[in-house]
Amino acid sequence: MNIIEIINKKRLGKILSEEEIAYAVNGYLSGEVKDYQMSSLLMAIVLKGLTDHEIITLTTIMLNSGEKLDLSSLGTVVDKHSTGGVGDKTTLIVAPIVASCGGRVAKMSGRGLGHTGGTIDKLESIPGFQVALDEKTFLNQVKTIGLAVVSQTSNLVPADKKIYALRDVTGTVESIPLIASSIMSKKIASGAKKLVIDVKVGKGALIKTLKDAQKLAKLMIQIGASHGIEVVCILSNMDIPLGNNIGNALEVKEAMEVLQGKTGHLTDLCIEIATQMVHLDLNISTKEAKKLVQKNIANGNAYHKFLEFVGAQGGNISNLPQSTYQYEILSKKSGFIDTIDALLLGNLSMHLGAGRLNLNDKLDYGAGIILNKKVGDKVEVGDTLMTLYTSKELNPQEISTESFLITDNPPKENPLIYQIME
Amino acid sequence: MNIIEIINKKRLGKILSEEEIAYAVNGYLSGEVKDYQMSSLLMAIVLKGLTDHEIITLTTIMLNSGEKLDLSSLGTVVDKHSTGGVGDKTTLIVAPIVASCGGRVAKMSGRGLGHTGGTIDKLESIPGFQVALDEKTFLNQVKTIGLAVVSQTSNLVPADKKIYALRDVTGTVESIPLIASSIMSKKIASGAKKLVIDVKVGKGALIKTLKDAQKLAKLMIQIGASHGIEVVCILSNMDIPLGNNIGNALEVKEAMEVLQGKTGHLTDLCIEIATQMVHLDLNISTKEAKKLVQKNIANGNAYHKFLEFVGAQGGNISNLPQSTYQYEILSKKSGFIDTIDALLLGNLSMHLGAGRLNLNDKLDYGAGIILNKKVGDKVEVGDTLMTLYTSKELNPQEISTESFLITDNPPKENPLIYQIME
Repeated sequence: MNIIEIINKKRLGKILSEEEIAYAVNGYLSGEVKDYQMSSLLMAIVLKGLTDHEIITLTTIMLNSGEKLDLSSLGTVVDKHSTGGVGDKTTLIVAPIVASCGGRVAKMSGRGLGHTGGTIDKLESIPGFQVALDEKTFLNQVKTIGLAVVSQTSNLVPADKKIYALRDVTGTVESIPLIASSIMSKKIASGAKKLVIDVKVGKGALIKTLKDAQKLAKLMIQIGASHGIEVVCILSNMDIPLGNNIGNALEVKEAMEVLQGKTGHLTDLCIEIATQMVHLDLNISTKEAKKLVQKNIANGNAYHKFLEFVGAQGGNISNLPQSTYQYEILSKKSGFIDTIDALLLGNLSMHLGAGRLNLNDKLDYGAGIILNKKVGDKVEVGDTLMTLYTSKELNPQEISTESFLITDNPPKENPLIYQIME
Repeated sequence: MNIIEIINKKRLGKILSEEEIAYAVNGYLSGEVKDYQMSSLLMAIVLKGLTDHEIITLTTIMLNSGEKLDLSSLGTVVDKHSTGGVGDKTTLIVAPIVASCGGRVAKMSGRGLGHTGGTIDKLESIPGFQVALDEKTFLNQVKTIGLAVVSQTSNLVPADKKIYALRDVTGTVESIPLIASSIMSKKIASGAKKLVIDVKVGKGALIKTLKDAQKLAKLMIQIGASHGIEVVCILSNMDIPLGNNIGNALEVKEAMEVLQGKTGHLTDLCIEIATQMVHLDLNISTKEAKKLVQKNIANGNAYHKFLEFVGAQGGNISNLPQSTYQYEILSKKSGFIDTIDALLLGNLSMHLGAGRLNLNDKLDYGAGIILNKKVGDKVEVGDTLMTLYTSKELNPQEISTESFLITDNPPKENPLIYQIME
């Protein structure tokens, strides 16, 4: 087999055989296929597409490139995934809720890079929290308290890891088939047989339109089915920032607030995700599941499950890190907040110390942003739009407020959740 | 500027600015843009295309990436190019014809790789022939005898050289805009202001259809015009192998036979190319030019010009190398020769020692193939189809005859020349 012939075939829009896809993926992993050949093939795939069968094949080949986690000793386990966002601390909230309802969550999470945060970084901002549990301890904790969250091991889906890094620097990220197979190969390897995926839709998201989100969701449900995995997708609005806090310890703090009863968009989305997870995991109707979720938040069980979880992994929640400085950023305009640009805020938060530009950067766990206004709020000149937390000295006058679009009229309200697909 | 943004722009089918094209090409040459990024951009260009303006810009930027040959001291000079073929020895024939008609040909040529031969290799098969003349000697020889052929210097269009090598291994060769800008940047850098291009059309050629050949020709004429260069394109049939001989010294021998009056398709094409070159160079009608060309072949002037040219560059034509062995390959079928696969023969010739698989392979100058039958010929079982010349011992029974398609009925005759465009 010859990689140039495979590239030429896809360039002409032809369907690749299982052998050809395996040759390209495994050859790339072994170094026989060069990165400049893989990137050329990826661009041909982005522009010419893949059939459903090719996508399922690609997913299976990537999945088989590394180890797979065996969760069968735990009985039914439910996992969740989000297609990425700024200030997305839903895992910290929904995992304890699901466990408090009697579900089981054995979760692997990643670290953040660029403007996107990672659940593992958020957890590591809690003094003492251990993210690297050995497999036995990990499984035992799930059995005992119903949940555990650990950092991804490096030998899970190495092909996706290598291909994703290449896509990131070759303009081949925005492809529904490639996104679907990347997400699903990782989640299948993580071992859960029930999966809720939060598909973010919006200008700031990878998926810009509801139509594309539907395509992606349909594909992921189909790939899941081909591996005996039940998948529910929640198509949610990314134009509305999730909660008020961005930055690791600040997000842990907000997660605790939500578990203690704080309301808003973040709470609404978490209830929806937790409901779908409980529905799948306990095999009860979504109506019953939602009642159970709401009850366990209201009676404090979910919050106590969170504390139990943090304690089990060695964390001390009473001593969250704080940054040296706080700067209030004031509005230079009056009017209504039309949109808040999550991408810009993600980048700002990174520069404050909450995120990393390079994989080896050290984080300032207390750094980040608290939004003092939300979309739809009326603001006057001089009102505080957001508060920055950082250990760097800076001049608040020099901080741009362009992430807040302020207009004369109140914005049209968009739904938080567009659609549930299963 | 950011290469990922440039790739994304082209992926979405948008038009790149001059600055963006310059950033990509010059960045690739300097190493700032990585090969895996360039190959991704090239695939996006292959699939999304380039506007005429983008193509002209790309050509100019590649042209300006290296040195340019200044032929202005020679007055009007005419050059020729072929989009590649097996057994294409037309330069060896038409350059002396044009010079014998009073035209001037100052030509840079390349070496062969894979199944394609190179004019420089063919000339080097002549004992003593010098292909590396310094610029002064080169120009002087053109002034004195009307022609000189030298090997390409490495500092002509380095961007095209680097990009072409990448296209070759990333499935991005078949793109009319990329082919046009590659050819034209090299030819413009070579200094001639008049140019005849033999555009090969056919299953075995880079350009498969007449429509694509017309597009390519139109583009090259347009690029030429934007640089003050007059271009004539001859769209010729690649399904008919050019002449009987493949292999370096064997092709020199056939070139001499044509100059001494041998007839056939090769002769017809050479007369057409030489006619267009003389027409451009001497600024006379094609009718007059053709008369002049035919006269100078018939009276032996063209052949004497060839001998003068070889002598001027130190070659001794009386002592052409010969291979150790000759093997006759016999037909296993009877019928009519429908097609002869030039690509397969090119590869066979390479394996006999006439071509190189890698750039540093040493050639067996006497090796190659003489076709004993041509398209349309009637053959019987046991007739000699071709004779192989090689220094390797081999079993002629094991040589495949699949390059000859033999059918029951004589083939439909295709024209040799489809169209002339200017």
